[in-house]
Amino acid sequence: MSDESFLGYAKRLLVGRPIPSSLAHHERLSKATGLAVLSSDPLSSVAYATEEVLRVLMIGGLAAMSLAPTISMLIAGLLIVVVLSYRQTVHAYPQGGGAYRVSKENIGELAGLSAAAALLIDYTLTVAVSVAAGVAAITSAFPDLHISRVTMGIGFVFLLSVGNLRGIRESGRMFAAPTYGFIAVMLTLIGWGLWRVFSGAPPTPPPVEPLPTFDAGMLTAFAVLTAFANGCTAMTGVEAISDGVPAFKPPESKNAAATLMIMAALAVTMFVGISYLSYMIGAIPSERDTIVSQIGRAVFGDGTILYYGLQVMTMAILVLAANTAYADFPRLASIVARDRYMPRQFMNQGDKLAFSNGIVSLSVAAGGLIWVFDGDTHQLIPLYMIGVFLSFTLSQAGMFLRWCRLRPAGWRRSAAINGFGAVLTFVVLVIVGLTKGPEGAWIVIVLIPVIVTVFIQTKKHYDEVASQLTLRDWTPPQRRTNIVIVPISGVQRAVVSALRYAESISTDVRAVFVNDNTEQIAALRRDWETWGGSTRLIVLESPFRSLMEPLLEYIEQIERERSNAYITVVLPEFVPSQWWHHLLHNQRALLIKGALLFRPNVVVTSVPFHLR
Amino acid sequence: MSDESFLGYAKRLLVGRPIPSSLAHHERLSKATGLAVLSSDPLSSVAYATEEVLRVLMIGGLAAMSLAPTISMLIAGLLIVVVLSYRQTVHAYPQGGGAYRVSKENIGELAGLSAAAALLIDYTLTVAVSVAAGVAAITSAFPDLHISRVTMGIGFVFLLSVGNLRGIRESGRMFAAPTYGFIAVMLTLIGWGLWRVFSGAPPTPPPVEPLPTFDAGMLTAFAVLTAFANGCTAMTGVEAISDGVPAFKPPESKNAAATLMIMAALAVTMFVGISYLSYMIGAIPSERDTIVSQIGRAVFGDGTILYYGLQVMTMAILVLAANTAYADFPRLASIVARDRYMPRQFMNQGDKLAFSNGIVSLSVAAGGLIWVFDGDTHQLIPLYMIGVFLSFTLSQAGMFLRWCRLRPAGWRRSAAINGFGAVLTFVVLVIVGLTKGPEGAWIVIVLIPVIVTVFIQTKKHYDEVASQLTLRDWTPPQRRTNIVIVPISGVQRAVVSALRYAESISTDVRAVFVNDNTEQIAALRRDWETWGGSTRLIVLESPFRSLMEPLLEYIEQIERERSNAYITVVLPEFVPSQWWHHLLHNQRALLIKGALLFRPNVVVTSVPFHLR
Repeated sequence: MSDESFLGYAKRLLVGRPIPSSLAHHERLSKATGLAVLSSDPLSSVAYATEEVLRVLMIGGLAAMSLAPTISMLIAGLLIVVVLSYRQTVHAYPQGGGAYRVSKENIGELAGLSAAAALLIDYTLTVAVSVAAGVAAITSAFPDLHISRVTMGIGFVFLLSVGNLRGIRESGRMFAAPTYGFIAVMLTLIGWGLWRVFSGAPPTPPPVEPLPTFDAGMLTAFAVLTAFANGCTAMTGVEAISDGVPAFKPPESKNAAATLMIMAALAVTMFVGISYLSYMIGAIPSERDTIVSQIGRAVFGDGTILYYGLQVMTMAILVLAANTAYADFPRLASIVARDRYMPRQFMNQGDKLAFSNGIVSLSVAAGGLIWVFDGDTHQLIPLYMIGVFLSFTLSQAGMFLRWCRLRPAGWRRSAAINGFGAVLTFVVLVIVGLTKGPEGAWIVIVLIPVIVTVFIQTKKHYDEVASQLTLRDWTPPQRRTNIVIVPISGVQRAVVSALRYAESISTDVRAVFVNDNTEQIAALRRDWETWGGSTRLIVLESPFRSLMEPLLEYIEQIERERSNAYITVVLPEFVPSQWWHHLLHNQRALLIKGALLFRPNVVVTSVPFHLR
Repeated sequence: MSDESFLGYAKRLLVGRPIPSSLAHHERLSKATGLAVLSSDPLSSVAYATEEVLRVLMIGGLAAMSLAPTISMLIAGLLIVVVLSYRQTVHAYPQGGGAYRVSKENIGELAGLSAAAALLIDYTLTVAVSVAAGVAAITSAFPDLHISRVTMGIGFVFLLSVGNLRGIRESGRMFAAPTYGFIAVMLTLIGWGLWRVFSGAPPTPPPVEPLPTFDAGMLTAFAVLTAFANGCTAMTGVEAISDGVPAFKPPESKNAAATLMIMAALAVTMFVGISYLSYMIGAIPSERDTIVSQIGRAVFGDGTILYYGLQVMTMAILVLAANTAYADFPRLASIVARDRYMPRQFMNQGDKLAFSNGIVSLSVAAGGLIWVFDGDTHQLIPLYMIGVFLSFTLSQAGMFLRWCRLRPAGWRRSAAINGFGAVLTFVVLVIVGLTKGPEGAWIVIVLIPVIVTVFIQTKKHYDEVASQLTLRDWTPPQRRTNIVIVPISGVQRAVVSALRYAESISTDVRAVFVNDNTEQIAALRRDWETWGGSTRLIVLESPFRSLMEPLLEYIEQIERERSNAYITVVLPEFVPSQWWHHLLHNQRALLIKGALLFRPNVVVTSVPFHLR
């Protein structure tokens, strides 16, 4: 079942919206296209991870910033451990091993749901952070743009949302250009920069106004931990390849594992390279110019084509990373909904609707985050990390337990790798929680259990409904007669049409007129002779000028007298030709429906009358 | 018809929500209670009118502020002319002569609609301005309250809204306390203040920080006109008594006219008195302390019981004035809706609904104004005057034309009075438009024609609908057979209940299952033998996993084959016991309804299945 869904996802990822003819033969990923399709998220975080490290270190001034290369090496080491650990998941779950499935199968329901909640939050933050960082890349290159970053960010989210709702035709080729373009320009930047540094002519970036915290005091051990936690943003998105195993060409697991290793090598090279270069040339975090942009200006020269290429490619891969979340979020939501933990509106039932719901939910949440956090990457980062490392930890702890349970050949070594990965990511999770908690991560720490509770309540509700729907030991309702009531306020075409319909569904039709105006009643009785047909006209008196109460009392009376009859209330309903005309009609029908909704055995039917 | 409605209004005004037993004998207004009930709006404007004059004059410094008594005398004169003019309306329209009716009957549709639009805007501004001024009275007396005036203002609007939605029990006595209390404390203030001024011991207010415009330059003629226009706020609400004639004890017109004159005398005395005193003691407009509060502090002494009594009474009558709009707005909306210019949702059809719609619309608009204009009376005033003087002008021009048309005994004199009133208020309207237009009144100048256009379009739509509904020259639809389709996704209690219902309305029932899963179909056929009853099971193939398309195609096929049959789609619909459970169900039913809404002859029926 979830296999089916995954193929659906891969298909969607590759060729866009389901198109009948494409169902038979769909594109599988080679290592090269796989890297392009699945690596935009982890690679793109290079664009902001170094900056997040430097922002903390700068408190200690230039001297403290020399710690940046060391911290980035540590993070690179952590990344390698995590990648090795995920490599095992890739082999163990050739059908795709997302954190939700791995931790639910191997640890338990709560762990799985926590992972799902963490991932849904992360996909939302991927969109928010990537878009915010992409906007920063653009505003760094073009500082004179007179559009606020919040407006621009929400604009991008809107475009992504519309694009995904309409169905962007995605293909390996479409992904390849920005991904490989980004890799190429980044490696050129690092190579050229290092050459200039070591050839004794280190480039210097144009001076920027540093953030106000620059050189503000002593660097504490806590601050160093914070810098480390910040740098871990470089690790976001590593999970994508382990999720996407079945999308690869056979042998799937082998190709996926190889792609994972290439991705890791590139991410490590780029992250360490940028961190080292930023230190060597003395780039300083500033509100206006990103670190990558400063390095670009220094190495390529300000205003050069290569510099603008760097910024545009950075923007492009960041938007691509955000776009990946637009496939991930609805897919995970669909899987969780299939397990009944989320509303079935998110469950893919063979049409666009479920994905549309996911896309809209994701866009609203991500746009809201950009708005609340002022489109500032740096403010969003603290929220990002909790979910990433919680899902890392749960996924790898799950793998560890799996090895201990299944005990295949060589399980000790595998368990050791995953166990080490789990412990390491758990330690980082704690560091992130302690250092980032006060900065805003507490929101996520509170949100995850709330979401898990909602998941469990939802499942409980669906299970209860299922037990109320079971046919076992159930005596079906007796077949009953049907008394049809047509409330009328006069005789006109819509009413006559409704009466004719009513007569087609029952032989006991009663038109009910609530009399609040004695003049009208004579005219009505006259019309009735012509148009009433076989229908009885019942006039209810309303001493207090209320229309609803006499009608409800009449229905109650029938219910008492004929307890085994259905009562159908037939209402004429105008279907206007213009949307705004809806505002001018139909409220009374809605009201009657609302009043009758909670009565068993009363059915309300609207007979549409189409206005020109 | 509108008489009927007016009695409903008067009843509501007097005894609150319609209560059956109260229909027979309802309270009529004596002059004393009539003054209390209908004068809160015109009398309360004394609380801010002087301040609005001084705010302009202060540009010219202390010397210019000596113009205030003169300007207030001019306004008092204008008020007397308007009141004399309205006195004639009171006698001519014993059934109540609102500006909408008077100008529609005597000038024409456009004039009537303009008056209605102006009045609806004014009722909204009455709420916004009165609440803002009431908040200013409170914050002047208690400057240390740490609640922003916007929050407090919106809070009051919310309370008024809830109170009116639930039905405040209004009575003459309830109105009497704040109105007569306000009159008493105001007259005491003026009397005592004048005595102290003339006895040679003029009181001085505690020093305040004047507004930054104080003593800023020369006073131009335009500024004097602006000051005059500002002071005209004292005239708002004069119309209330002419609207409310039938609520008085017989002889209605005579009592109403007498009350009108008393009201005018009180308003003139209080307005001129406050303006004169403010000049004599040298009160200066300030952001923190209202003029009335400054006079109160000077005359009664800061912190005295009388001072606090003044502020509380001011607040109370202002809230009362706002509350009056909560009766006026829904009533006028109901009258306009009865003439089909507004959505019928506002039309009173004997229950609370129409008034609730009016109350909610009014509250949202007034709350929005307070929010947008920062809860600042002074910023709201410019918007207020256009509507007031447009309705004055139209109403009196209408009366003038009426005299010229009917020519009763003494019509020349009556026409002269109303004509003079119309010309004078028109001149003020032009002054207000010129001086206040740039300050924000342009919004209202733009809004009135927009609203009138919406009124006309609404009427046009209803007229078109009526012509489409007429039975003349209409051949009623043939009585047809009914083919019932029950889309099912499996067999469970809700589905079986829907099937039993379907069988009660037709002999041709077809359960339709869209097959996207071949495993399920065998189980379904097995269940069908037990539960299917007489219903045919139709399995539609869905090669592309879409559920909707095969269903719609099937319906289209039936439409083609059986063009004279109704097609009824019966859907089981869960009725959850908890509101939030709605989020977990029913979307597919809604979708099917949406997809079928625009097909004539297709009726969608939901059979409720009640969840525990």
